[in-house]
Amino acid sequence: MTRVAMERKVLTENDRIAAGLRAQFARHGILSVNLISSPGAGKTSLLERTLERFGAGERVAVLTGDIQTDNDARRLARWGFPVRQITTGGACHLDARMVEQALADWDLASLDLLLIENVGNLVCPSSYDLGEAAKVVVLSVAEGDDKPLKYPAIFFKSELLVLNKVDLLPYVNFDLALACEYARRVHPQIEIIETSCTTGAGLDKWLEWLKARRAMVVAPSIILSEAKDPRS
Amino acid sequence: MTRVAMERKVLTENDRIAAGLRAQFARHGILSVNLISSPGAGKTSLLERTLERFGAGERVAVLTGDIQTDNDARRLARWGFPVRQITTGGACHLDARMVEQALADWDLASLDLLLIENVGNLVCPSSYDLGEAAKVVVLSVAEGDDKPLKYPAIFFKSELLVLNKVDLLPYVNFDLALACEYARRVHPQIEIIETSCTTGAGLDKWLEWLKARRAMVVAPSIILSEAKDPRS
Repeated sequence: MTRVAMERKVLTENDRIAAGLRAQFARHGILSVNLISSPGAGKTSLLERTLERFGAGERVAVLTGDIQTDNDARRLARWGFPVRQITTGGACHLDARMVEQALADWDLASLDLLLIENVGNLVCPSSYDLGEAAKVVVLSVAEGDDKPLKYPAIFFKSELLVLNKVDLLPYVNFDLALACEYARRVHPQIEIIETSCTTGAGLDKWLEWLKARRAMVVAPSIILSEAKDPRS
Repeated sequence: MTRVAMERKVLTENDRIAAGLRAQFARHGILSVNLISSPGAGKTSLLERTLERFGAGERVAVLTGDIQTDNDARRLARWGFPVRQITTGGACHLDARMVEQALADWDLASLDLLLIENVGNLVCPSSYDLGEAAKVVVLSVAEGDDKPLKYPAIFFKSELLVLNKVDLLPYVNFDLALACEYARRVHPQIEIIETSCTTGAGLDKWLEWLKARRAMVVAPSIILSEAKDPRS
């Protein structure tokens, strides 16, 4: 009983900070995306391929979480966009306070898109709201098609499933149709994009998804400001 | 501060139960191995290939942990050895109490080897002692060679690293020598076996490791009983 009460308290504190972040992101019209996967599913590679396709004028930034090392931040910094590493020092997930602290001295007015790469873990990060507009789960085909049923929480909470490393399909025992069926069994509305960061397959669709999702973030705030002051 | 205190209390309770399990395993001369990896690194496939190579007289049993589904227990039951699924219902790791409960009605005197397949998670299971003689970390080459540096705790605590899915090496960007160097940087004494459950490569070495490790479990108890009663 004590443990349950404690968990609730921790999550409430996290939810409070996450709500503050969400309000900030909304005020600045920022789409924030929380990328979650097992270790090695290809989150960093997906971000590399994403940043390399963005023009220099793109208003994008990345927070990347790891238990140890700043390898990912160094990999991602090459494209010249703001990148910051959050090293959790043992924690198995990012929480809202870590994101709040990492953003403290950033000018959010200069951003349209914030990509948050969580710690590699298909379980724990799903319980921690970071104030993001959308969670995206990345699953590598090398991990097996049964993962949506075995780790349902993250598939239930994610708007989009990125099925990555499809270039490995000829060499692994992975039934693509079955994996999609399992994901939709857990979350019927989940969108699915198949990608390969090696061949570039599906990356256009991923960028289109980001663009469309960003439009959804901006639209309500325009409508809201019009509703507030119809004369302006 | 409160959170740290809580974690300590939970771990102390876990350690108490784990010590009880360890004493039971020692009394019965059982080698218990705790297999830890990311989701989809190939723990279940490794166990399938292990059980299929054992003769019917082998005194082996398997506990397999998952958040949801009993898929793995069903996969593993085919070889006729005792297999039990532990479904954690959300928890990101096995703990000693789950193992204790799963073993409650098993006759440990009938076992020489207990293989425990943890929940797919490269982070949290490393903090929970299950009373095992050895932790074994399984890393798929599809996950990337940097994982020992990014998730050091489990590589530090494991006696053996099983580098699995080496059949995929031609198709992925994975530097085998570098991965081994990173693992040894975290844990200089770690043993490393390269395996493929698809081609069968390295499985003999894995079985030899289990045999040698079992001999280490049995030997001290013989020495102990001789020391206790030299006349017998």
